[in-house]
Amino acid sequence: MPVNKIDMNSDVGESFGNYKLGMDEEVIPLISSANIACGFHASDPHVMRHTIAIAKKHGVAAGAHPGFPDLIAFGRRNIDASLDEIKDYVIYQIGALKAFATAQGMVLQHVKPHGALYTMAVKNMEIWDAVAEVIAAVDPELILFVLAGPWRKDLKAIGAKHGIRIAFEFFGDRAYNPDGSLVSRKLPGAVIHDHKQVAEKVLKMVKEGKVVCIDGTEIELKAETICVHGDNPAALELVGSIRKSLEEADVEIAPPASFL
Amino acid sequence: MPVNKIDMNSDVGESFGNYKLGMDEEVIPLISSANIACGFHASDPHVMRHTIAIAKKHGVAAGAHPGFPDLIAFGRRNIDASLDEIKDYVIYQIGALKAFATAQGMVLQHVKPHGALYTMAVKNMEIWDAVAEVIAAVDPELILFVLAGPWRKDLKAIGAKHGIRIAFEFFGDRAYNPDGSLVSRKLPGAVIHDHKQVAEKVLKMVKEGKVVCIDGTEIELKAETICVHGDNPAALELVGSIRKSLEEADVEIAPPASFL
Amino acid sequence: MPVNKIDMNSDVGESFGNYKLGMDEEVIPLISSANIACGFHASDPHVMRHTIAIAKKHGVAAGAHPGFPDLIAFGRRNIDASLDEIKDYVIYQIGALKAFATAQGMVLQHVKPHGALYTMAVKNMEIWDAVAEVIAAVDPELILFVLAGPWRKDLKAIGAKHGIRIAFEFFGDRAYNPDGSLVSRKLPGAVIHDHKQVAEKVLKMVKEGKVVCIDGTEIELKAETICVHGDNPAALELVGSIRKSLEEADVEIAPPASFL
Amino acid sequence: MPVNKIDMNSDVGESFGNYKLGMDEEVIPLISSANIACGFHASDPHVMRHTIAIAKKHGVAAGAHPGFPDLIAFGRRNIDASLDEIKDYVIYQIGALKAFATAQGMVLQHVKPHGALYTMAVKNMEIWDAVAEVIAAVDPELILFVLAGPWRKDLKAIGAKHGIRIAFEFFGDRAYNPDGSLVSRKLPGAVIHDHKQVAEKVLKMVKEGKVVCIDGTEIELKAETICVHGDNPAALELVGSIRKSLEEADVEIAPPASFL
Repeated sequence: MPVNKIDMNSDVGESFGNYKLGMDEEVIPLISSANIACGFHASDPHVMRHTIAIAKKHGVAAGAHPGFPDLIAFGRRNIDASLDEIKDYVIYQIGALKAFATAQGMVLQHVKPHGALYTMAVKNMEIWDAVAEVIAAVDPELILFVLAGPWRKDLKAIGAKHGIRIAFEFFGDRAYNPDGSLVSRKLPGAVIHDHKQVAEKVLKMVKEGKVVCIDGTEIELKAETICVHGDNPAALELVGSIRKSLEEADVEIAPPASFL
Repeated sequence: MPVNKIDMNSDVGESFGNYKLGMDEEVIPLISSANIACGFHASDPHVMRHTIAIAKKHGVAAGAHPGFPDLIAFGRRNIDASLDEIKDYVIYQIGALKAFATAQGMVLQHVKPHGALYTMAVKNMEIWDAVAEVIAAVDPELILFVLAGPWRKDLKAIGAKHGIRIAFEFFGDRAYNPDGSLVSRKLPGAVIHDHKQVAEKVLKMVKEGKVVCIDGTEIELKAETICVHGDNPAALELVGSIRKSLEEADVEIAPPASFL
Repeated sequence: MPVNKIDMNSDVGESFGNYKLGMDEEVIPLISSANIACGFHASDPHVMRHTIAIAKKHGVAAGAHPGFPDLIAFGRRNIDASLDEIKDYVIYQIGALKAFATAQGMVLQHVKPHGALYTMAVKNMEIWDAVAEVIAAVDPELILFVLAGPWRKDLKAIGAKHGIRIAFEFFGDRAYNPDGSLVSRKLPGAVIHDHKQVAEKVLKMVKEGKVVCIDGTEIELKAETICVHGDNPAALELVGSIRKSLEEADVEIAPPASFL
Repeated sequence: MPVNKIDMNSDVGESFGNYKLGMDEEVIPLISSANIACGFHASDPHVMRHTIAIAKKHGVAAGAHPGFPDLIAFGRRNIDASLDEIKDYVIYQIGALKAFATAQGMVLQHVKPHGALYTMAVKNMEIWDAVAEVIAAVDPELILFVLAGPWRKDLKAIGAKHGIRIAFEFFGDRAYNPDGSLVSRKLPGAVIHDHKQVAEKVLKMVKEGKVVCIDGTEIELKAETICVHGDNPAALELVGSIRKSLEEADVEIAPPASFL
């Protein structure tokens, strides 16, 4: 049964020192879950404090967005790190962000791995398992965000094994392969630029639990959270379009902690 | 009235990646409070996990040892950072270490600033105030370690203002000026190398609350924790001598959380 | 005798990884000397290669802009580094940039310390001496950019001692104290925002070798290079105004290697 | 025809800040080519200056040992970097080290990629080509060190294409597969610990251009340089054994620039 509530998440808090990135002040009020960078692939302690403050101000759920320690490449390169290294990186970053949340009277809601760490996990279930394990050890109330797809059952099992909740994530602006994977960004048509098309795609997933793939086939796909972007004015506009379309269809935009 | 309990603390967990530093396995069993580096001036996520594990194994209290983000100089250089920068650095590092403690079922006991951050605070009460403020915000059970001296009352007041406990630290192997400050390491006689002399100095402070200064004058000095080192075999031997001398004088070596 | 040639320099190549900063493509064609960040306080190897390429394309002289290893604060904080540390930082950064220049068939023209390294040198002649010493050792053809002021003779002496050329730098948009120092940015009136006023100030310095100070007094000030900025459209416009004003007064804008 | 000269190279200058690694003072006098870390995977500007000084003192040829910017893992992890990123990393590091050499009146002899960069190149000829390209651009006198093996002809061709010399490297303490590759360290027998056996293996390669593989088969293998280690007293002893064995067989130990 499709949900009538959906979360909208966005990667925020990605500035660093003198370097500004993103439009956090604008996008955070439009989403329900903020994925906040933790100082490895982006961000610094000052930016983290500030980003928690923005999330708090708008009543938006805050989550950790841990990445590889690869600031020079924004955490976007695969690094042949061991599972132990990954676990320690994730613990460290959750802890650092959590302290900023605590200091401002907030509670972290979720954890969404960033960039290469996320895409490596998508291809290697052991990484999801490792991340779930340390989330459970640090704070079992934290929800793990993972890619939605036919592997839902397997990831649910990992969540159950470690006693944590899993939220599945949908990418409205990305084309899907019939096997549920995302079409590589290197291929034509991978990213959908038409706002109306994206909004319709999101709505279909929310209402019917289905997505039309790049080859025209339709597959089942359940998700509790949608990834949106706040990098530039056009991205913000798209977020607005998706919100409007969901609201018009009586879908409530809410953080997953409220319905999972 | 002098205490009949005293804490012994040591800076540990200072290895980084492929680089090993210190004799943590040997020194941790000999102390009651471990000051654990948090990845800015030294350490990395793996080392932090491992150091928490050693402290847990030996029932030694664990504390955060935050420093400046200056790995190349081991956090030993003064950096003209703002109070806001310092506060954010300290929150971040406490949080990161706390997550490793939580993941292993431990609770952090204290915070002791490292290197230049410590010595800058000694000369600028506003830094102690800033550190106390964020400790209170992150976890008011954490005890702040500060340099013992005639400024005891002022620092007690800072602790009271923020609702946190303060533990004053004594350096048995360092010469003191009559104003209660440490003799600069650049001056002759600043560091006391004779083990017997150090042990006697520690005992005098613990039993009488007094220290004989470099000029022969005697001043009052109360402290709840003694700083010792575990960098090399000679340092370890000194720790043993101090322990023995304290035990023979019926002074109990215990973490400050147990008596403050 | 006032010069009828003047250099215009600007700090460029300050992007880092995914983070973009400045309008290098726009400002570099307008200047004669590009101060290129070298990866410590800003920039990375890719940005350095790219910035050398822009300078080459426009026939603009390239120089190293070494700073403290303090990316998180953009090299703007005083760090209590030793002269040996500073010398090694400067050698390293000059070498790194020089390799990119060599690889593209360019020769480096100059070295201008960045941020806190520059301002610390202004207050401590030993730092200029240290920087001059290593420039001479790495490549004595490199010109050292220093702050213009009454200390001209002393810095000329340092240049002569090490056998390198010195170019004195003037800040057209900054107010001067009667002792030749820059008015602190923390004080009102420190930065001049009126484009016409800046252009006139530059012209007066170039033509008469004089500057009107913040208190109205006039002092002598000789400089061979003017610092301009390319951070934003307004800054670019100012560069255009200064250029126009100089060209109308028959002052040639040229890199210092061509006339020193 | 087998050579009667051979180079002995070792990775040195791998300390960082407060962290000491290796026995550079002891091993450098025993080798003919020093591979000096350049600040990315290990080392810092101070260590680089100091290591060049040791090499100079002993008349040992100095080379750049560039690695990935992955200090936390000592450059030992594969990173999915682009060829452009690799080229820029290598240019940067060669330049930085070269400046220290120049400042001390030395000339760099060679470039040997470090750790994961080396092993990735071994499996991907495009990386060797990229490294050769930038070496030629920065300084075509620099010799590129690569793994010896049946691919000798292909790498010779890459050297010829870019106009640089290639030196092939032999690992006396590593077992070889019949295809010329090194036996993975994860497999038993990969590392040979018996000093006599290593010395004989080196001698056979030098004198006959042959190596006995892990399965007992004998393959042809020509190399101009042998990799040795100086991490610990046992490693140093092995270097001494190899030297003695070579000298007794009238093989001259000399840097490749002297015979290539």
